[in-house]
Amino acid sequence: MEYYIGLDIGGTFVKGVCVTAAGEVLAEDKCPTGSEQGGGAMCDNIAALCRSLLSRVPEGRLAGIGADCPGMITGGVVKFAGNLGLKDFPLADELEKRLGMRAELANDAHAAALGEAVFGAGRNYKNSILVTLGTGVGGGIVIDGKLFEGGFAVGTEIGHMVIERHGEMCTCGRRGCFERYASATALTRRTKYAMEEDAGSAMWSKYTSDTCTGKTAFEFMDTDRTAREVVDWYIKYLACGLVNLANIFRPEVIMLGGGVAAQGERLTEPLQAVMDKEIFGGNGFAAVKIVPASLGNSAGAMGAAALCMKSGR
Amino acid sequence: MEYYIGLDIGGTFVKGVCVTAAGEVLAEDKCPTGSEQGGGAMCDNIAALCRSLLSRVPEGRLAGIGADCPGMITGGVVKFAGNLGLKDFPLADELEKRLGMRAELANDAHAAALGEAVFGAGRNYKNSILVTLGTGVGGGIVIDGKLFEGGFAVGTEIGHMVIERHGEMCTCGRRGCFERYASATALTRRTKYAMEEDAGSAMWSKYTSDTCTGKTAFEFMDTDRTAREVVDWYIKYLACGLVNLANIFRPEVIMLGGGVAAQGERLTEPLQAVMDKEIFGGNGFAAVKIVPASLGNSAGAMGAAALCMKSGR
Repeated sequence: MEYYIGLDIGGTFVKGVCVTAAGEVLAEDKCPTGSEQGGGAMCDNIAALCRSLLSRVPEGRLAGIGADCPGMITGGVVKFAGNLGLKDFPLADELEKRLGMRAELANDAHAAALGEAVFGAGRNYKNSILVTLGTGVGGGIVIDGKLFEGGFAVGTEIGHMVIERHGEMCTCGRRGCFERYASATALTRRTKYAMEEDAGSAMWSKYTSDTCTGKTAFEFMDTDRTAREVVDWYIKYLACGLVNLANIFRPEVIMLGGGVAAQGERLTEPLQAVMDKEIFGGNGFAAVKIVPASLGNSAGAMGAAALCMKSGR
Repeated sequence: MEYYIGLDIGGTFVKGVCVTAAGEVLAEDKCPTGSEQGGGAMCDNIAALCRSLLSRVPEGRLAGIGADCPGMITGGVVKFAGNLGLKDFPLADELEKRLGMRAELANDAHAAALGEAVFGAGRNYKNSILVTLGTGVGGGIVIDGKLFEGGFAVGTEIGHMVIERHGEMCTCGRRGCFERYASATALTRRTKYAMEEDAGSAMWSKYTSDTCTGKTAFEFMDTDRTAREVVDWYIKYLACGLVNLANIFRPEVIMLGGGVAAQGERLTEPLQAVMDKEIFGGNGFAAVKIVPASLGNSAGAMGAAALCMKSGR
């Protein structure tokens, strides 16, 4: 049996897993990222975490190490990662110095998509897309079982696809980007706005316009018309972007990740109805399923491990 | 020297080329498609065209045959091609029966993209997109030198990416699709509308609102404000879709094909300015160039030939 280490480097913690090619988890652990002390200190922390995981691996059975982090990663170098304070940092080289083995690197959204594709909700499909509904909308694309990262590995910024040309201003400088409507942030903002417009909404019984979240409208959708309208608004925009992606990539499955995806069928059923109706050429051939992702917070680390498996890249 | 035959099956004619892997053209010819007499008759015509081309190839030097046609092509079968009146037609099998060699098949927009990528404006790049501005907006995507056709080879319907959610109704049933704004048809429609709104436009000196085309506004853009506004409108929408594609795929180059692309720098310069300003993360890293395609009507047949070259798939 061969083992693979996967490292998901986040702003606060590094999550590490040691898995087999079949996805069995031998060990998992985490450590503080510590990037505020610089990239070198961060790599020292990661190396220590790796050694702790490696202590569980039988001699000579480590087949590869993979790592992911947020930001722009290309050719083993972190071109830019705002959350980690890194710029043009040769992460693969630095890890190799400390571990004696070269690590495969990827962007965290890409790694999570690969994790879901290899071990999670996409494991029975060759072509899948993971759409993560969080602060923004992130995405990763797996084609023919391989991670597709775009040119120079910096593509697949699906959250920055304009779907409403004269729409809301986005942080990227354009108007009407998908993530201005489909992120958890956008859902929360819409909920807050709807509550402020409707003093009689049942949502006020439990939340204020400052404490409402992306869950609030779903929680009240069966009993409050304003909440229902917020959910309908959200689903229309989310569906619009998902059908765009389906028309461009025609994956077998689109997996939804991030907190909003916990709504399960309340989210996927209406989205599937729009998809089946609107997908180009109809759903009679090469239909696209919409399902919740299944690995939760482990998708990144599992996917990082998969980066160095034969199937992953 | 080995030779490849490429066949571009259009609604009226089949264009055939015989080329080397370096793109040198040994012979070219065409024949009527004749699909109105059925798929079998069409295949007889294509086989005769092939034999005529083959008569120029030294014995034993034919390395492959590739063909493209409009519509939904998957696994050697034409699932649906409205222009040819074909449905679930086993084109690869039928050609093999007649030619004794299996032909590689692709959708015509995909083949054209491969042709431009291997032999045309994209030949110096690994990642390119061909966007064809015609009756609709078609597209083909080449990643790492290989044609990317989407799942089941029926993806990359980039014309049916919504960019204006509450916009104009599209033939596909959705509102605000890219091709409703960026096709030659859309440009002509907008020109007609602008002329009808401005009786004093200089465009009336040469055209009526029935004879204007996608060229009219470009022809008068330097001397007529209304014409200039039409061009500006068109470029804004076209740029919006191209930046979306750049953010999703991050190709090195986007090539523009179809009649409108003949405008050259009048089109590409303002598009490039928007791209450089709006591409996600800026153009400092992995900039995306916008250029006219270079093979014209030969792109499809050349790309069909490339389908069976090592580099193509």
